[in-house]
Amino acid sequence: MHEDARQRDAADPLADYRERFILPEGVIYLDGNSLGALPRATPDRLAEVVRGEWGEGLIRSWNSAGWIDLPQRVGAKIAPLIGAEPEEVIACDSTSVNLFKLIAGALSLKPGRKVVLSEPGNFPTDLYMIDGLEKQGLAQRRLAPRNELVGALDDDVAVLLLTHAHYKTGELFDMAALTRAAHDAGALVLWDLSHSCGAYPVDLNGCGADFAVGCGYKYLCGGPGAPAFAYVARRHQQALRQPLTGWMGHSAPFEFSDDYSPASGVDQMLCGTPPILGLAALEVGVDLVTQIGVERLYAKSQALSEFFRHCLSELGVSLDVVSPTDLAQRGSQLSFRHRDAFALCQALIARGVIGDFRDPDILRLGFAPAYLRFADMAEAARHLAEVLDSGEWRRAEFSERAAVT
Amino acid sequence: MHEDARQRDAADPLADYRERFILPEGVIYLDGNSLGALPRATPDRLAEVVRGEWGEGLIRSWNSAGWIDLPQRVGAKIAPLIGAEPEEVIACDSTSVNLFKLIAGALSLKPGRKVVLSEPGNFPTDLYMIDGLEKQGLAQRRLAPRNELVGALDDDVAVLLLTHAHYKTGELFDMAALTRAAHDAGALVLWDLSHSCGAYPVDLNGCGADFAVGCGYKYLCGGPGAPAFAYVARRHQQALRQPLTGWMGHSAPFEFSDDYSPASGVDQMLCGTPPILGLAALEVGVDLVTQIGVERLYAKSQALSEFFRHCLSELGVSLDVVSPTDLAQRGSQLSFRHRDAFALCQALIARGVIGDFRDPDILRLGFAPAYLRFADMAEAARHLAEVLDSGEWRRAEFSERAAVT
Repeated sequence: MHEDARQRDAADPLADYRERFILPEGVIYLDGNSLGALPRATPDRLAEVVRGEWGEGLIRSWNSAGWIDLPQRVGAKIAPLIGAEPEEVIACDSTSVNLFKLIAGALSLKPGRKVVLSEPGNFPTDLYMIDGLEKQGLAQRRLAPRNELVGALDDDVAVLLLTHAHYKTGELFDMAALTRAAHDAGALVLWDLSHSCGAYPVDLNGCGADFAVGCGYKYLCGGPGAPAFAYVARRHQQALRQPLTGWMGHSAPFEFSDDYSPASGVDQMLCGTPPILGLAALEVGVDLVTQIGVERLYAKSQALSEFFRHCLSELGVSLDVVSPTDLAQRGSQLSFRHRDAFALCQALIARGVIGDFRDPDILRLGFAPAYLRFADMAEAARHLAEVLDSGEWRRAEFSERAAVT
Repeated sequence: MHEDARQRDAADPLADYRERFILPEGVIYLDGNSLGALPRATPDRLAEVVRGEWGEGLIRSWNSAGWIDLPQRVGAKIAPLIGAEPEEVIACDSTSVNLFKLIAGALSLKPGRKVVLSEPGNFPTDLYMIDGLEKQGLAQRRLAPRNELVGALDDDVAVLLLTHAHYKTGELFDMAALTRAAHDAGALVLWDLSHSCGAYPVDLNGCGADFAVGCGYKYLCGGPGAPAFAYVARRHQQALRQPLTGWMGHSAPFEFSDDYSPASGVDQMLCGTPPILGLAALEVGVDLVTQIGVERLYAKSQALSEFFRHCLSELGVSLDVVSPTDLAQRGSQLSFRHRDAFALCQALIARGVIGDFRDPDILRLGFAPAYLRFADMAEAARHLAEVLDSGEWRRAEFSERAAVT
């Protein structure tokens, strides 16, 4: 198993990219799907932004350092990773705030329809942002299990809102098929790409998608709480109206007029002043993912997770896998159901194998392919086998829950 | 004039604090009301957050480094600067997004009333966020000049939304009087403190205010696009409902339930995942402002602007001052009306005196008291006099407008 891993690492065309990240000693990091690791170039770039652009340039840097265009510049760099044109993507706000803008925006394009359809167990914030609009009286939330979604698409549905790769299981939706089904029913589609962008070659325009949002701090390695992004298909950009009409989404923000007039294109998705430190860090992560290439990242992540399963099998570990075993249906993670998933997760962390726990019984291991080695898979599998064998996860210290895991 | 400045600097109890900032050589920075200068402690703190907390701690830092409580921690530190209790303030999102939450939240407390009253010429994003809710059909915007505001407070007004210190002129509202007038009319008040917090001793609770928002990147020195803050008076926290119901404002975000249930207290103002880099930088700025003391900062800013006027007068410069000349009615800035304000501003910048221009004819000079010297006032006045005398601002290079000034 370890020799096999050695050979795979030696043959891995992405092996050298691990050096492009700063990773702690003695840690196998299987949580890049929650918070991506730190690119080696980020600290220096941030120091330059802070000392040079802010400290020396001061207010002048809005022009001289290009701060004012940073949301568009970073958005344009994200675009090719998700099958979009540069003018269709903008980096701004949080995933949650962008969901609100785009659910409301989509509703504005479908007068007479109020239903926003999603699935139970979607990532909570996706569902909660529908709730917010529902309490405003502007939307009506409808949930249907994933195998009943197509049947739930009736004349009342304005928007189908789905997360492409499920946060808990990694299961993928067939983006092309669901988009087609929604359009056939006269609805629009909003995809949450948080768990696929940067790890899976998404093709929004190839699928005819309408809208999308995604997260900057997972596979894009933009840092904790990094800005998110929003995608608006070009054909909707003229008619779309979103309610968070802040000054940066105005057609002429520096004329300081009393009345809002939306900027053209995707720029109207902007609201407040852009968070420059966060955007600068995100740009470094996006540049690195772009350089490695999302197709190669996807291939390696699948190879990693398959090899991890192979190692578990060699070690005689049998766990209830809730992720699809069919590679074509799986994002870049493997999740296991276990009654004591929380304690197992804590026992692994104590050994330096960082995965995460999702309530109530899921141990979730992510395979961020840019910085993981096959040797890490073999080691992580060995640790998991030992933890299960030894029963060390039953120790009291591992069962006390902290706020975030 | 210069000797006078020297004596004033020698007697200035805040003089040593200038060393706590990193400022470029050869620049007199009169735009701290737009982007505050860089605290000397910020680069090291950010490097620690990036290399240590993100790079080494990875996902664990949400607990071990206290990231998860950062919005509350920074909010609690801002609270005493604005006359609030620690549990009434939270740092999150942008000023614009927080305006949306609180206008909508205030409307939810006043069923049957839809009017949001403000003044023409308020900072654009304040007005635009009303527009967004108006287009949702949830609000009705009404504007009245400041001397007619009280008369415009009728039974339809749900919220009075005003900016405490005017962004263009620095003119202050009488917060206590306007709040009382609004309450007398059965309305709630939302104060935008962007141009007063950190430079002027605001007393929200003393005035009986209901809600407030404010900016992190001006006098609080949080860096470009820093997170903003929101204040909700304790008496409203239980009943308030805001529509941006993201997972971080949930009462139990890590239970991942399908239904939104608001967190108690000011925490329900949170929406998406908090921007850690921005919050960490903001915390440094807030700590520094707190240490200097907002009363002392206010006293010095008034002394600086009065001395600047005195220098102009000594130099025989006569300009149309649009800021109140009565100190009690003025925030930390002086604005001048001039037909060629843009070119004047550019000519000053070319000499290293950075102020800013506000459309169509305002030259705006801010007196951020934490890092400016009386000598800077004398020098800036001399430069302004020379620019006007020489007519150098008439040169073509100074009249071409850039995107941001």
